[in-house]
Amino acid sequence: MQHRFYGESIPFVSREEALKDANLRGYFSSAQTLADYAEVILHIKKKYSADSSPVIVFGGSYGGMLAAWFRLKYPHVALGALASSAPVLYFDNITPSNGYYTVVTKDFKESSESCYKTIKQSWFEIDKVAAKADGHSILQKKFNTCKPLEAATELKNFLDSLFSVAAQYDRPPRYPVDLVCKGIDSAPEGSDVLDRIFSGVVAYFGKKPCYNLDAFFSAETLEGWTWQTCSELVIPIGRGSNDTMFPAEPFDLKEYIEECKSAFGVPPRPHWITTYYGGHHFKEVLRRFGSNIIFSNGLRDPYSSGGVLENISDSILAVYTTKGAHCMDILPATIGDPDWVVLQRNIEIEIINGWILKYYQGLLENSS
Amino acid sequence: MQHRFYGESIPFVSREEALKDANLRGYFSSAQTLADYAEVILHIKKKYSADSSPVIVFGGSYGGMLAAWFRLKYPHVALGALASSAPVLYFDNITPSNGYYTVVTKDFKESSESCYKTIKQSWFEIDKVAAKADGHSILQKKFNTCKPLEAATELKNFLDSLFSVAAQYDRPPRYPVDLVCKGIDSAPEGSDVLDRIFSGVVAYFGKKPCYNLDAFFSAETLEGWTWQTCSELVIPIGRGSNDTMFPAEPFDLKEYIEECKSAFGVPPRPHWITTYYGGHHFKEVLRRFGSNIIFSNGLRDPYSSGGVLENISDSILAVYTTKGAHCMDILPATIGDPDWVVLQRNIEIEIINGWILKYYQGLLENSS
Repeated sequence: MQHRFYGESIPFVSREEALKDANLRGYFSSAQTLADYAEVILHIKKKYSADSSPVIVFGGSYGGMLAAWFRLKYPHVALGALASSAPVLYFDNITPSNGYYTVVTKDFKESSESCYKTIKQSWFEIDKVAAKADGHSILQKKFNTCKPLEAATELKNFLDSLFSVAAQYDRPPRYPVDLVCKGIDSAPEGSDVLDRIFSGVVAYFGKKPCYNLDAFFSAETLEGWTWQTCSELVIPIGRGSNDTMFPAEPFDLKEYIEECKSAFGVPPRPHWITTYYGGHHFKEVLRRFGSNIIFSNGLRDPYSSGGVLENISDSILAVYTTKGAHCMDILPATIGDPDWVVLQRNIEIEIINGWILKYYQGLLENSS
Repeated sequence: MQHRFYGESIPFVSREEALKDANLRGYFSSAQTLADYAEVILHIKKKYSADSSPVIVFGGSYGGMLAAWFRLKYPHVALGALASSAPVLYFDNITPSNGYYTVVTKDFKESSESCYKTIKQSWFEIDKVAAKADGHSILQKKFNTCKPLEAATELKNFLDSLFSVAAQYDRPPRYPVDLVCKGIDSAPEGSDVLDRIFSGVVAYFGKKPCYNLDAFFSAETLEGWTWQTCSELVIPIGRGSNDTMFPAEPFDLKEYIEECKSAFGVPPRPHWITTYYGGHHFKEVLRRFGSNIIFSNGLRDPYSSGGVLENISDSILAVYTTKGAHCMDILPATIGDPDWVVLQRNIEIEIINGWILKYYQGLLENSS
C-alpha cells in the first residue's frame, strides 16, 4: 500500500507544488496515512467478503513504525504487526541522540581498528587541507569529484553518508563496511589519510570517471521526508561528544526548529509522536495495553539504537540478530541468505502463526 | 476540559462563522478533540511533576464516547475510562436504528398503558385536524403555542422531543415520564386525545401563558452538534415500523447525506467512527486489546440501546441499572438519590480503585 505523497500518490499536482501548499501538506502525516490504511483494508475485506480474516501489517524503517503504530491505533483492523528496524524510541529524548552514530562507529571498529582510526582522523585532515588557499581544489582532485567543491562540508557530508549507509545496509553479499574498510586498509604504501579514505570510496562505488557527492540523495524520498521530519517525525540524531568516529555535532533542537521554520513557515512538533503513539515508559505502558507486535532488528543497523530490543510481554516481542542490518528480515529471501536471517524470519513466521491460531480459536469458542 | 467549538472554545471568530469556514470546521472532530485532551493532560502532568500519576477520564453521552475512545487511542495517557450513557454501538448499523424509540416507547408503556395508547393515537389525530381548512389554527389554540403553526410537523416534532427528552432524563425527583403520563391520564372527563396530550405538555412544563415549540433546542449545542452529526457522528436513529408509539419513519441514509450536503457542502462519512474506533465485532475485538473501561447505563435511557450492556473482559465492564436514565451516575450526588444509583456509583468507584491499585503494584514490581 502506498503512503500519501510518495510514489504516484501525489494529490492533484506535483510533489513539489503539493509540499508548498500548507493546506495540502497538512494531510501528509503518519496519522492520515494510518487512516488511509484502515480505509483500504476495510474496503478490501468488504470487497472480498473477508470480514473475519485476520490481517497482519508489516513494514520496515518508517514503514515499520507505521506497522507498530497501526496495531496500537487500529487493533480492530489489524491482528498484529511486524515492525522491522523501526526506531520507535528514537523520539523526544528517549534514546540518547548519538545512538545512531555510536552504532556506525562500532560497526567500523569491529570491521577494522585501523580503518576506524583512519576515518576518525580524516575529518581533521579535510579541515586542514580546506584551510589552505587552494584547499577546495586539492580536495576535489584527491576525491575526483564530478563538480568543483564549494565547501569542505559537501565532502564531509558525503563521507558521513557513505559510512552511515554502509553501516545501515551492512548485509550480504557485499557487506559494505568490510568493503570500505578493506579499501581504506589496503591503500598503496605511502598513501596519506585522505588517499586511504578515497580508496574506501572507490571500493564502495567501484572505479568511476568521477564521484558524485549527491549519490546518496534521491529527490523522490528526500523531499517528502524533509517535510515529515520537519513536522512530526523529529528524530533527534546527533553526535554529542567525541565518542564516535565522527566530529562532535550535538543535535540542536532550537536550530532544527529554526531551519524547519525557514523551510516551511511552521515549526515542527517534537513531542507529538510520543503524545500520540506513546514511547515514554514504553515497557510499563505498552505491556499493559499493547499486544501482537514483533519488533525485529539487526544490531549492525544504526537505527537499532532506537528500536525495541527486549520482550515487553507475551506478545510484544523483540527478535534481533547481532549480525543483521536495516530491514534485512523483510527483504525477499534468496539462496545465499545466511542462516541467522533465515532463522530470524522463521521465528517471526511462527510467532505470527501463533497469533492467527489463537485468533481462530477465539472465534471458534465465541461462536459455539 | 472543554471540547473545541463548544462553550468559550471558539477559534478566532464566532461559532457560526467558524462553522461556515470549511478549513476551520475541519478541526471540529472527535479525533482532534482527543488529541487536544492528550496534549492538555500531558502538559498538566509535566507542570505538576505528576508524570506517573494515573489519569482516569470520564464523561457522559458524547463525552462518554470520547472517554471510551480516549482510553482506546491513548492508553499511554489515561489508565482508564468511565463512559456513562455512551452509545458507542449506535453507528454503522450495529444497533437497530429504531433502538432509541423502542426504549422511549417501553418507558411510557411501563408508566401507563393508557398513556402509551393515547400518544400512539395522537399522531393520526394531529394529521386529521391539520388536514382541515383551519386545521393549523385549531392546533395552535388546542396547544396554546406562542407562535402560529405553519405546519403540523412543528407540533409533532415538539411532542416527539417532549416524549424523548422525558424518557432520556427520566430521573428523580421529577420522573418526567410518570409526570407526563399522569397529565395525560388525568385530563378532565370528556377530553379528546389531543386535549389529553396537551394536558401532558402542561404537566411537564407547568401552567404557562403559552408554549414555545422550540423549547428543547439550545443554539449553543445544536449548531455544533449538527456539524458533528453531519461529518463523522452519523447516528442512524429512525423508526423502522409500527412497533413504537411514534409514526414509522425509517432512517434514510441517502436523504440524510443530501441534507448534510446542502447544509455544509460536503457529505458525512457514515463508516468513519467504526473504522477509527472499532465497534463491529465489539465483543471479540475489544476483549483482545482493550482494557479498563466502564460502560455505565440506565436502561430507561433510550441511548442505552446503543450502549455496551455486557462485560467484555475482566476490565471492560458494563454497569447498568434498570431504573436509571441518561448520565445519572455522573450527576452530583444528592441526599435524595435512590439506593440503586448510589450502588452504581460505588461499584464504579471500586472498579476504578482496583485499576489504580494494580497500576501502582505494577510500578512497584518493575522498580524493584
